[in-house]
Amino acid sequence: MTQIICDGFTVTGIASGIKKNGELDLGLIYSDSPANVAGVFTRNSVKAAPVLLTQKRIESGMAQAIIANSGNANCCNGSRGDADAAAMTHCVAQALGISDAAVLGASTGVIGEPLPVHKIETAMPELKRSLNPRGWEDFARAIMTTDKVPKLISRQEIFRGRPFTITAAAKGAGMIRPDMATMLCFICTDAGATASCLDAMLRSAVDRSFNRITIDGDTSTNDTVLMMANGRSGVAMDEPAAVDFFQAVLDEMLVDLARQLVRDGEGVTKVVEIAVQNAVSPTDAAAIADTVAHSLLVKTALFGADANWGRIIGAAGRSKAHFDPRCVDIYFNDVKMVEDGQGCGKLAESEATQVLKQREFTITLDLKAGDASCSLLTCDLSLDYVRINADYRS
Amino acid sequence: MTQIICDGFTVTGIASGIKKNGELDLGLIYSDSPANVAGVFTRNSVKAAPVLLTQKRIESGMAQAIIANSGNANCCNGSRGDADAAAMTHCVAQALGISDAAVLGASTGVIGEPLPVHKIETAMPELKRSLNPRGWEDFARAIMTTDKVPKLISRQEIFRGRPFTITAAAKGAGMIRPDMATMLCFICTDAGATASCLDAMLRSAVDRSFNRITIDGDTSTNDTVLMMANGRSGVAMDEPAAVDFFQAVLDEMLVDLARQLVRDGEGVTKVVEIAVQNAVSPTDAAAIADTVAHSLLVKTALFGADANWGRIIGAAGRSKAHFDPRCVDIYFNDVKMVEDGQGCGKLAESEATQVLKQREFTITLDLKAGDASCSLLTCDLSLDYVRINADYRS
Repeated sequence: MTQIICDGFTVTGIASGIKKNGELDLGLIYSDSPANVAGVFTRNSVKAAPVLLTQKRIESGMAQAIIANSGNANCCNGSRGDADAAAMTHCVAQALGISDAAVLGASTGVIGEPLPVHKIETAMPELKRSLNPRGWEDFARAIMTTDKVPKLISRQEIFRGRPFTITAAAKGAGMIRPDMATMLCFICTDAGATASCLDAMLRSAVDRSFNRITIDGDTSTNDTVLMMANGRSGVAMDEPAAVDFFQAVLDEMLVDLARQLVRDGEGVTKVVEIAVQNAVSPTDAAAIADTVAHSLLVKTALFGADANWGRIIGAAGRSKAHFDPRCVDIYFNDVKMVEDGQGCGKLAESEATQVLKQREFTITLDLKAGDASCSLLTCDLSLDYVRINADYRS
Repeated sequence: MTQIICDGFTVTGIASGIKKNGELDLGLIYSDSPANVAGVFTRNSVKAAPVLLTQKRIESGMAQAIIANSGNANCCNGSRGDADAAAMTHCVAQALGISDAAVLGASTGVIGEPLPVHKIETAMPELKRSLNPRGWEDFARAIMTTDKVPKLISRQEIFRGRPFTITAAAKGAGMIRPDMATMLCFICTDAGATASCLDAMLRSAVDRSFNRITIDGDTSTNDTVLMMANGRSGVAMDEPAAVDFFQAVLDEMLVDLARQLVRDGEGVTKVVEIAVQNAVSPTDAAAIADTVAHSLLVKTALFGADANWGRIIGAAGRSKAHFDPRCVDIYFNDVKMVEDGQGCGKLAESEATQVLKQREFTITLDLKAGDASCSLLTCDLSLDYVRINADYRS
């Protein structure tokens, strides 16, 4: 694995006691110089206190630290929640000797329980002391909730002879759907970019990655993606070629992280791309991909490795998209299972069943109606998903 | 239980061999005189062959027989499917000595496998012979797929001194969501009404019943609700008071049947009414009821008897409805669990948990924003739902 660092950033994750089981639950990212920043947030109208705070603070385009906790969402806690979110960032500002306005916050965990800010304040000396350039894995672990593995990626690239780095950590294993960002993701780069340039690049990359995955169709009150750029590498987004180069790298990284999220989705045994091709319009293609990717009947059939294409075409049919069911072809990887809306027989079915036994594969719906397409990454709905979510708080 | 009959109608259900396990799979309803008819059908753009046939035939407003099979949906079978749907009704017409146009058809079961019409043709003499006024339970059993119990209801009422009867059978235990009818429902009455009057009354009743329930959010390619009226009782819809009286009875009956469907939903252990009150608009109220009723996180929490109100408010937040999260109250039956967007503490939670252990209860979201309301009936998402649907075809 590439060494996970990013020049000018120190990072850490520790156990502060918010999680009852003693696991890492408090993370900090610190840029040793002020960095430009951009963010994408949940579109849920119920927003956690740290989301409201951070949305406001990034309007300045500048930040120097991000504190994030797991184990408590600090959501639906009224004005006390607002005060606690501010207090969480205030103690970081004091410890690091920077202004409150330069500290961003994020939380994830159970909704509706007061954030134990005193635990964060007590942990602050240790949190500061443990900051180091190689702390990314600890940070990634500190933001995990039902995730089984930390999600990290780092790439060093060279543009016009100069190296630059992008490093990112993410969490999220449920409550993800493609009409917003994701749970939490923090991206640092030593390239230089204005806040508005960062914002455009981040939104574009999120649209191709976190907005194209679904686990259970629910969205979170706390979803936050933040990107900081400190310019330390000397590579700057001061020409279109630099922006294009950086965007391509960022896109690939977030697509990779998005796939990591689905792979680690709650109870997931299969990661499945739903590829809709030759729809009349992009809206139609997206509508069909969305209903198929979210259909419980499709997702349970995936879990059961059942090539039940009738459920796929039925889910497509309840989208509002225009298509002729008697023209649809359906493939499981390269196996054509449906032609012109009718099944291709027992041999095709047995081949498709072999594809369904794989851990990752693609289901393609060819509508033969136009030239628009859309892909979403989804997963199966397993017994473990129900077990995990029936018991989450107990 | 009221005796299940309806004057002038004979009914039956037999085993024709379509279902491999030898259970009842073929039902017939016969009106001994031509009846007026109305129907409501799936809005899925993928429609089974019998749906297309029956939609066309009821344009005449008249029918005399309905044949329905389970075990095979006759959907996605191309022109062969169309021919088979016609053949299924043709052999009924021949056996009963009526015109093909007076016979309606419905199918339910696996999609994409050819309908074994020869089994229906072979069974026709037995099917005709077994027609009798008390055959409703056999009929209801013959249309079951994953249903565990037959769904039947019959009411005899008196209007201006004259008795009339409405009797109905339904099936459906999954693939139900509130943007269409239901799986299958057949309603017979010996009251008299024109086809257009029947149509208006049926649509209104379906809107209050089958359009207000959800099991897994999927919709079917075969959903059909048909109502036949033969006028035998002498009670006619020839004055507004008669229509109002009839409508009220019909509404109650279909609401009862709808609840029976959810109670028997696949893997259902809890039947839960989601009541949204004091929304800004009916659209907002419906949008919130819909996202809460379909949220996998809410449904798994219901299964786990977890009073996780954060998931409820989070699901409300991802609807497009306008509301202030800091004004929302949430009740489990009469237990106030959330006030002004914040939890009401441990005592309320323990009381709410007791409510959640009941088999049927109501979750109320009071938005305190306007005067619109909407209720939906939903259910939990259990381990058995996943087991049933991962294995359906095997």
